[in-house]
Amino acid sequence: MTILAETAQQIEQKLGFPLRVKAICSRGVDQVAVPAGLGDVVRTTDWREVVSHPEVDIVAELVGGTGVARQIVETSIDQGKSVVTANKEMMAAIGSDLWERAIAKSSNLAMEASVAGGIPIHAVLREGISGDRIAALYGILNGTSNYILTEIEKNGSAFADVLADAQKLGYAEADPTADVDGHDARSKLAILSALAFGMKITAADIFTEGIRRISPIDFQYAHRLGHTIRLICAARQTKEGLFLSVRPALIPQSTILANVQGAYNAVWVRGVYGEDTFYYGRGAGPRPTGVAVVSDLMRVAREIVSGSPERVSPFAHERLGEFQPISVMKQKRAYYLRFKVEDRPGIIASLASILAEKNISLDAVLQLPSDTKSDLPFVITVEPSTEGAVQKAVAAMAKLDFMVEPPLALPMETSL
Amino acid sequence: MTILAETAQQIEQKLGFPLRVKAICSRGVDQVAVPAGLGDVVRTTDWREVVSHPEVDIVAELVGGTGVARQIVETSIDQGKSVVTANKEMMAAIGSDLWERAIAKSSNLAMEASVAGGIPIHAVLREGISGDRIAALYGILNGTSNYILTEIEKNGSAFADVLADAQKLGYAEADPTADVDGHDARSKLAILSALAFGMKITAADIFTEGIRRISPIDFQYAHRLGHTIRLICAARQTKEGLFLSVRPALIPQSTILANVQGAYNAVWVRGVYGEDTFYYGRGAGPRPTGVAVVSDLMRVAREIVSGSPERVSPFAHERLGEFQPISVMKQKRAYYLRFKVEDRPGIIASLASILAEKNISLDAVLQLPSDTKSDLPFVITVEPSTEGAVQKAVAAMAKLDFMVEPPLALPMETSL
Repeated sequence: MTILAETAQQIEQKLGFPLRVKAICSRGVDQVAVPAGLGDVVRTTDWREVVSHPEVDIVAELVGGTGVARQIVETSIDQGKSVVTANKEMMAAIGSDLWERAIAKSSNLAMEASVAGGIPIHAVLREGISGDRIAALYGILNGTSNYILTEIEKNGSAFADVLADAQKLGYAEADPTADVDGHDARSKLAILSALAFGMKITAADIFTEGIRRISPIDFQYAHRLGHTIRLICAARQTKEGLFLSVRPALIPQSTILANVQGAYNAVWVRGVYGEDTFYYGRGAGPRPTGVAVVSDLMRVAREIVSGSPERVSPFAHERLGEFQPISVMKQKRAYYLRFKVEDRPGIIASLASILAEKNISLDAVLQLPSDTKSDLPFVITVEPSTEGAVQKAVAAMAKLDFMVEPPLALPMETSL
Repeated sequence: MTILAETAQQIEQKLGFPLRVKAICSRGVDQVAVPAGLGDVVRTTDWREVVSHPEVDIVAELVGGTGVARQIVETSIDQGKSVVTANKEMMAAIGSDLWERAIAKSSNLAMEASVAGGIPIHAVLREGISGDRIAALYGILNGTSNYILTEIEKNGSAFADVLADAQKLGYAEADPTADVDGHDARSKLAILSALAFGMKITAADIFTEGIRRISPIDFQYAHRLGHTIRLICAARQTKEGLFLSVRPALIPQSTILANVQGAYNAVWVRGVYGEDTFYYGRGAGPRPTGVAVVSDLMRVAREIVSGSPERVSPFAHERLGEFQPISVMKQKRAYYLRFKVEDRPGIIASLASILAEKNISLDAVLQLPSDTKSDLPFVITVEPSTEGAVQKAVAAMAKLDFMVEPPLALPMETSL
């Protein structure tokens, strides 16, 4: 609302007509400060009053979740209103249904704020590079995880300590599961990959692993290998189909993606024709998200005024082929394996023989100086192998009696 | 045409209707290979035949320059056709006139390919972040210059040698003026800043300096200062007005802009509300530019089908205030001053006294080990001072008898 009030003149000049705020609905609507300059605004705690208001053309749903938010959006569409939403959970879960509903009612739907708030990635995929065919998309889509990882990287602190600090500073929720276990990033990847590849993809289709096991020592080894570690959302077209995953991975320090620090988000798109493009900005925050919502309101208003309803769903899964989930087990990548062992002779020999059994070629063994004989970290990298083979090897290795904890296996995204 | 032919099915699925290539005009049209799958296509060497063809709705102008290209675009608009153009020179020179003409005729105009071919920066400014107010925009917009600078940086070769190699490899033109003297980047900045700030800006308004004087030693000193050097297109809103410049500048190595290597382009936007966003991709090349043209064709086709003509020019200079060029002389920045001198006692004292006379505070003096007494390079950095004061100081310093060549002054963009 601050942006709408402060930029009202600019909006009118860009659109050729003004945007007027007609009604505000919030549980604590009495406490909502309505900026001067918005004029008369209906205040209500009943969303039905907004949705059925005869002068309301566009409903901005900023509730979140899939409960009342869904009711608001569905009822708005049914009443012939257009909708702007910032709701990633809902769009990841039922986005394609909502889109069909909007098209049937000649309403417009916009969701720029639902993924990577500050990055206009929907405008990019829908318009900017719509003429390309997407070969792969890589994203850093969870600001909290990226903040935690880059703090571990910078300060060498343990995951638990950085998380506790982030919670104190308000960068992480009291229950950090959605962020650090990758669920939030997974919803966002589901939306972006649906848009990029024209397939119906739901969050449940996506292999997901969080960042809880990443320790400072992993950054030390990754750096030694010329890499860093980020929670990477990946969607790659291969001969076998579309690979989707959300997991911590090693990425080269020379890639521009490795420069994404703190709570920033980024999306890397590899086009068949346009080659690589990269988009970066704030992942969340009221003002960056507000820009996305206002930009969407402007676009939808322009479309309403020019009488152009949505015609084609960006989620239309019939369009570019049905999505066939491929098991991540078939993914072939170089891997980074990090061990913590009780030091004794013969360790490398036992590990190497397990790798050989699973037909995995060892690439290098790295050990940084350390004086802890009872909890000694070291790393083995292996040449491109399937996730399935690596997981079997890791499971066998975990049973060896010198292991202090199960080995950590991270893929290496060397082609970035 | 390759993209249109190979992605015809995807285009039809995304739009809900097909795009058909009706006619091709080229001087050597007999040599043009029309990909299979495009169907019957009129081939002609006379552009009037295309522009007056009754079944042509959109004309893609890929001629370049401001001669026949302008005639093609103006005649197309006058005949009620929409236009997609990749022509930066023309849009920088007369973009706002063309846009008014299109609006008057209810035609649509699109120009994504005219700036930073591979980066969909027009879609971003027009839609993605249209709700924000832009505080500053920084770009690396000339791929050839960026290739030359990053080659000097990597290999320590002299400008002339890298340029000669780039010409051999086809990365630089036989006459490299437009690229290395900043004229090409200036046209692009004129277009982008017009879009970002809603003002009528022509290339002539922009202070422009090329990269010919940048030497390997400058990168060594810049690195020592934690910076690198790029040809930076800058547009910054200040209390005094909008500062525009195209010139080599020092930028911090930690900024993501410093990671733009080789022939890539990038745009950094600082929004009042959305904070920083960053866009990166190929600057040119037939395929990235082709993606921009095809994406524009799709958008314009969608707008034609839904009956939504252009209503507001992105160049409308009445809208957000008339542009008042401010002299770059008022720009206040920290500066990097690099000298080549015949070594003798008292040099620093003479230079420092000139700085003191002009009220410029010296920040640091740097000298890397060197054994050339007769052509000794070293660097002085100064605290934020106006360009005017710095230029006066440099002019006075150039007259000192120990100077081997005039001092080089580069601004330091430390706020990136």
